[in-house]
Amino acid sequence: MEETLMSNDTSKGPEDLTVMSREPLIAGTPLGSMKDLETPAANFFVRNHFPIPRLESSGWSLKVTGEVERPFSLGLDALKEMPRREVLVLMECAGNSRGSVQPPIEGLLWDNGAVGTARWTGVPLRSVLEYAGLLDSAVEVLLEGADRGNQQGTTGEMGYSMSLPMDKALHPDTLLAYDMNGESLSPEHGYPLRAVVPGWFGMTAVKWLTGIQVLSQPFWGFHQNDYYVYVGEGYDNGSPKERVTYLQVKSLVTWPGRGRILTTGRHEIRGMAWSGQGPVTKVEVSTDNGRTWQPANLEDSESPYAWRQWTSCWDVSQPGYFLIRARATDQMGKVQPVQAQWNYRGFANNSIHAVPVEVRASG
Amino acid sequence: MEETLMSNDTSKGPEDLTVMSREPLIAGTPLGSMKDLETPAANFFVRNHFPIPRLESSGWSLKVTGEVERPFSLGLDALKEMPRREVLVLMECAGNSRGSVQPPIEGLLWDNGAVGTARWTGVPLRSVLEYAGLLDSAVEVLLEGADRGNQQGTTGEMGYSMSLPMDKALHPDTLLAYDMNGESLSPEHGYPLRAVVPGWFGMTAVKWLTGIQVLSQPFWGFHQNDYYVYVGEGYDNGSPKERVTYLQVKSLVTWPGRGRILTTGRHEIRGMAWSGQGPVTKVEVSTDNGRTWQPANLEDSESPYAWRQWTSCWDVSQPGYFLIRARATDQMGKVQPVQAQWNYRGFANNSIHAVPVEVRASG
Repeated sequence: MEETLMSNDTSKGPEDLTVMSREPLIAGTPLGSMKDLETPAANFFVRNHFPIPRLESSGWSLKVTGEVERPFSLGLDALKEMPRREVLVLMECAGNSRGSVQPPIEGLLWDNGAVGTARWTGVPLRSVLEYAGLLDSAVEVLLEGADRGNQQGTTGEMGYSMSLPMDKALHPDTLLAYDMNGESLSPEHGYPLRAVVPGWFGMTAVKWLTGIQVLSQPFWGFHQNDYYVYVGEGYDNGSPKERVTYLQVKSLVTWPGRGRILTTGRHEIRGMAWSGQGPVTKVEVSTDNGRTWQPANLEDSESPYAWRQWTSCWDVSQPGYFLIRARATDQMGKVQPVQAQWNYRGFANNSIHAVPVEVRASG
Repeated sequence: MEETLMSNDTSKGPEDLTVMSREPLIAGTPLGSMKDLETPAANFFVRNHFPIPRLESSGWSLKVTGEVERPFSLGLDALKEMPRREVLVLMECAGNSRGSVQPPIEGLLWDNGAVGTARWTGVPLRSVLEYAGLLDSAVEVLLEGADRGNQQGTTGEMGYSMSLPMDKALHPDTLLAYDMNGESLSPEHGYPLRAVVPGWFGMTAVKWLTGIQVLSQPFWGFHQNDYYVYVGEGYDNGSPKERVTYLQVKSLVTWPGRGRILTTGRHEIRGMAWSGQGPVTKVEVSTDNGRTWQPANLEDSESPYAWRQWTSCWDVSQPGYFLIRARATDQMGKVQPVQAQWNYRGFANNSIHAVPVEVRASG
């Protein structure tokens, strides 16, 4: 979508992103610029719910409260003195690719640009929780951001918060991150501190973190229980809803782009693939309406949480109109579906990506 | 799409349109403002291929050439002295609704806003051709616009031209129009003269007309034979292609909008319906996943070429998530399909429109 929808308008931001909304800021990465394992911060998608809170490190502190033995708060310098951990983690908005869900869904029609991979450095959430001392009554850990605002369909102002179950909160790779690709977080990406929850969709990677609250009851907040949930057609909205959590197995064709005109001959097809439930083990490419599938070359990745780059060689002798399709399989044996199951907000769409191209006779 | 994609950005034009491209200007009508039989000019979609040529009536003339007995050219005043004809005609871009074609197609991902109905006043093309005197060698009539520019995938500059077969050119309702809803055409809509071809998609309604050329051979121009054509996956682009011509039977839900939150109780559902091959005779609405369909009330239309407004009453007692679907049938018995047949540029998508809404308990 980004290749044409925005190609002639004025909505390009100062960074290399396709801006879909300015307040709150929502912007995606053009597919063609997904070339590297690490996505530069200036090119990393942004999905905010409320205006960006402009926090200063001097006045900022993280408050750890709730079902702990020693509630405390600490500043950024103190946090940086704790043992640090660095993890390469892909982040994807739960709404990524929902622009292609049919019938169209409620909400912003994201193309495929709401995904990126960065090297995050910070303190494991576990370390902070251990320092505070968890009580036996602890059942969830609430991550509280400083961003606040009005949410369509609700009254009054609210903040942005998400909870993690204890096993996810205590996983050593779940981070409170202050650096992204070796530099301090920018305001867009959550300065001074954000959560990074490997393998889950981005909605739990709370930005502008100011509070960690250990809960004795499951959290019941708007974004968690009313917004980032799977509900189908005819679903009673008074019933409990399934929460969006793990990333689905997925691949994108990043080259050639939609509508690209090629000539007969050999072409490299490139893309990215990932999954939240184990690394991608196979990517296949089809250029003949899904009749046959060729295995692509998969690059190694140093991290099980990152995407893997893939390439495939296409030798096309016949001019005409083609769809290039890519299909990933993960370690669990999960494969991308032809069509995603419809849900009201179109979350977690991982249906097979297909890119139309025209091939002309060369020479 | 228009309801959210553009809601927070700066791309609203001076008129009440959702701007998708500024150069060439491409802009659509928000669904919610499709309320009246006549669409005001300021609210009428614009689909240009090249920059708008700024023509002055003083220097302008229409040249009629080719297979005619008496080639001639005439100015705007002379044209306005010829017997005038007024017709209420719906115009729809062939690419309208292609944003919901799956897999995504080549080109701008239009939502549903590229359609409108206006009262066009002008001279029947037939009158001009009769005045010139058609030779027996005439096989097509070429409409030549003054707009020029570069087209992706081609080299050099080109103009925008489209031809009509003789029966369409000689139909008394095919107009050379100078007025739209009782006022002179604006520059965006083709000042001083444009074609209006009832029942066909908008690409033949050439704007900024400066030439009428009667041809002894079928026209072979880029837009007609390479662009506005139906080609499927695997189609050899050296082969002849089927041209896009007639409008398909279609209906849109204009109220409520996508993602609207309603309360239990009675609601009016509203929309528009049309067809290019005879008037719409029936519109049905489903709110239960297409299991049952209720006939909607169809308003009369004074013109067979206009859309018809329809309304339906929805009494919803159960809170939850619903898709509102509308399905039209025309005089020929043609019905909208659940899914349109895929073609490379997604032309003529008339699949059933489905709008997701949330219903909450009232009170």
